[in-house]
Amino acid sequence: MAADARPKARLPGGLADVAAGDVEERQAMLDALLATYRLHGFAPLETPAVEYLDALGKNLPDEDAPDQGVFALRDDDEQWIALRYDLTAPLARYVAQHRQELPTPFRRYQAGPVWRREKPGPGRFRQFTQCDFDTVGSGSMAVDAEACALLGASLEAAGIAPGDYEVRVNDRKVLNGVLARAGVTEPDRQLEVLRAIDKLDRLGIDGVRQLLGEGRRDRSGDFTAGAGLRDDQAEPVLAFVAAGDPSRTAVLDTLADLVGDDPTGREGVEELAAIAAALDAMGVGPEVVFDPSVVRGLAYYTGPVFEAALTFETLDEKGRPREFGSVAGGGRYDDLVQRFTGQAVPACGASVGVDRLLAALRTRRAEVDAPADGPVVVTVMDRDRLADYHAMAAELRSAGIRAEVYMGTQKLQKQLSYADKRRAPVAVIAGEREFDAGEVQLKDLVLGAERSREITDRDEWRTDRTAQRSVGRSELVGAVSEILAGA
Amino acid sequence: MAADARPKARLPGGLADVAAGDVEERQAMLDALLATYRLHGFAPLETPAVEYLDALGKNLPDEDAPDQGVFALRDDDEQWIALRYDLTAPLARYVAQHRQELPTPFRRYQAGPVWRREKPGPGRFRQFTQCDFDTVGSGSMAVDAEACALLGASLEAAGIAPGDYEVRVNDRKVLNGVLARAGVTEPDRQLEVLRAIDKLDRLGIDGVRQLLGEGRRDRSGDFTAGAGLRDDQAEPVLAFVAAGDPSRTAVLDTLADLVGDDPTGREGVEELAAIAAALDAMGVGPEVVFDPSVVRGLAYYTGPVFEAALTFETLDEKGRPREFGSVAGGGRYDDLVQRFTGQAVPACGASVGVDRLLAALRTRRAEVDAPADGPVVVTVMDRDRLADYHAMAAELRSAGIRAEVYMGTQKLQKQLSYADKRRAPVAVIAGEREFDAGEVQLKDLVLGAERSREITDRDEWRTDRTAQRSVGRSELVGAVSEILAGA
Repeated sequence: MAADARPKARLPGGLADVAAGDVEERQAMLDALLATYRLHGFAPLETPAVEYLDALGKNLPDEDAPDQGVFALRDDDEQWIALRYDLTAPLARYVAQHRQELPTPFRRYQAGPVWRREKPGPGRFRQFTQCDFDTVGSGSMAVDAEACALLGASLEAAGIAPGDYEVRVNDRKVLNGVLARAGVTEPDRQLEVLRAIDKLDRLGIDGVRQLLGEGRRDRSGDFTAGAGLRDDQAEPVLAFVAAGDPSRTAVLDTLADLVGDDPTGREGVEELAAIAAALDAMGVGPEVVFDPSVVRGLAYYTGPVFEAALTFETLDEKGRPREFGSVAGGGRYDDLVQRFTGQAVPACGASVGVDRLLAALRTRRAEVDAPADGPVVVTVMDRDRLADYHAMAAELRSAGIRAEVYMGTQKLQKQLSYADKRRAPVAVIAGEREFDAGEVQLKDLVLGAERSREITDRDEWRTDRTAQRSVGRSELVGAVSEILAGA
Repeated sequence: MAADARPKARLPGGLADVAAGDVEERQAMLDALLATYRLHGFAPLETPAVEYLDALGKNLPDEDAPDQGVFALRDDDEQWIALRYDLTAPLARYVAQHRQELPTPFRRYQAGPVWRREKPGPGRFRQFTQCDFDTVGSGSMAVDAEACALLGASLEAAGIAPGDYEVRVNDRKVLNGVLARAGVTEPDRQLEVLRAIDKLDRLGIDGVRQLLGEGRRDRSGDFTAGAGLRDDQAEPVLAFVAAGDPSRTAVLDTLADLVGDDPTGREGVEELAAIAAALDAMGVGPEVVFDPSVVRGLAYYTGPVFEAALTFETLDEKGRPREFGSVAGGGRYDDLVQRFTGQAVPACGASVGVDRLLAALRTRRAEVDAPADGPVVVTVMDRDRLADYHAMAAELRSAGIRAEVYMGTQKLQKQLSYADKRRAPVAVIAGEREFDAGEVQLKDLVLGAERSREITDRDEWRTDRTAQRSVGRSELVGAVSEILAGA
């Protein structure tokens, strides 16, 4: 870093800037989500971005390299600190620290960036935004049911139409029961089963069957080893995976059969039955379904898990139509606070992937021109009249209209280009002639842009005045308001 | 990190959680600031928290220890990356990177956390929030004048009364001119002069005089060496420092005398004169003053500097009354983009210290009881009636009233304690008797808390019903609304 060497203006991989229109669009979506959480009784909490690494916890992949997967460094006291990788681990730390003062259950929401130290790639970011709500301190399945219902209400508040999403619920204890009953008890093999189920989307039920058994050779000839289950072991797992049904009761019946009298399995089915009862009590319809193929986070959660998926089609990277898929997920994690205190504290929550939901909302909107979302620009033709230009801007602002006096030093034509670049809806123009006549010129830049696309003849364009009009100085605010209202 | 060793639930020093009421209070303040920036034509930008260390720049104290003062680590490609320490360095990087596509001038705002790796102490945080606006690409002093006016408008929007603040403007070129004329040209001595001026608040003009000359011995007997200026060199500096006056014109006249024909000094006076003209054009009154004793950030800025100070008194750590002081600052920094591109890009902006302004707002508010800002809590007396309780909560929410069904598993008395702890304004209670009668009980928890303070007799308290009333089931929303409205 020699003093005379110029640094390059660039960002590290997997990090991105968000510019004006996108910030506002995302903020509006976040506001809708958070207002819905709040309306349901959750309250905000903000934890800092940096925590002790050991407090963030056990979900780190490699204990020998404690900074694996996270951005970590040694603090001045030589202890490892790190950027949070989700909002749940800091919540567990907070609850463990403040348990005595907090209401039980403790219901909080939090939105903010999280960081993952992963290999960046196209669409793979190392900083992204999560938007969570959690209820800590209640083991009631009503909490899990409320979380599913609230995910749905939040998606609708953000602009997803009813019918365009589904909240899919599963319970890891049910699969554990099915596996126990089939004699699959080794954790490693259970994990392989999970991985196989997770590929249902991509490979279909026959692919999963191969991966549960001997293994699978793909079209390129590559072979993936299977979990090595016998057919009679694989069959109940496949039946479990295929047990999804629009009727929650029907799924419960199937699952009850599959787990038989395995105690863990029965506990899982009872949890789902309690969720079903609570959903019915809440009047929640078919937008919440039981779907045993949902594997999401099974390693992390202790009971019910759920995800919110958008059911409309989008095109994948190869141009094939497929379901847009998961934009939010959650479940019950009864062990996280216990890590600190030794005391079991039941907890359940959900997290919306803000950037993914935003991407989804964009695909659902009709293609429109970028809106003229910039400020009204009061141009400066005569520097001696600055007081008049500022008075115009101040009047517009008093009426709640976003406005600025042009702050650069260029001539009118460049000022109008600036207004275009800012996507200003209106430019206000006044020179000696207008001041003498007690008037201002208003240039409707939206209409102007339309006209300039229609008019190909340069001379016609020069003389076209449809997008520009003179109004009396005292009518400034009224006339601008009219243009903004599209009148 | 042995698997069985429990981590302690705690935060690293200088980092803090922000709980419910405080989050909402701060967000409301931020919203007011940002809406004002926006109304004046600025647009949002969000840069990521992490940047390349060399892009964050030259303001690092020690090049041999590149991570001094910032939280930095080596990325997977061995390059140093770091958490941003302000929002200006990332802006300069962004503008350098995207100059071609951006409008000129580029006007953006950004609010967000920044991180400083400093020794934490009481009230000294290592993560805090800044709220900035900047205009990049215009050398016009109208930009600096607008920034001062906008700081004032923003403080007022956040709840600071007109008359309770002052925006103080200085120009580093004027002092440079005064010093040049007095023959003080060595950068080290100039820096000592700055440090002496910076102590005006604490030591008064006589203390500054001593520090400009031989040095100063404080009451404890400790001696601070002075800048070693002769009396005839110190006098113009002291005259400069004392040149503040409510009249901007009067200050300009004094400064013009002090700089004589020194070219840098004259340039500074001309800049201030241009700012004065622009302020007049904007109709800005005595809330913006010229005050040469403002030293803030002189090392960082290239011309005009300013700070917004709250002028009401507060008590310092020793209980002595003193001005609350600076809550925001800014100035012109024409060199920051040039670091990257070699091309001079004029820029000017300001930053509001969000946490300090919030502290100020709190001292100005009348002492009030914490408001009942929690949700309406629908208690659960009869688990078989969950559908009814959920219907009540849903009705309240449809009317925009924040409400939740109690999600724990405790009995009514504990549910009411929970509602108190949540600062719920109302608890809804319905058991068999109420359901049979088609009624619900509403407990006004605000009134209840007042009554419980008034009533010392236990028996009277038991029979007191003023805070509780029965209403027909169909009147639920109306009756709750009435209580919330304080009717």
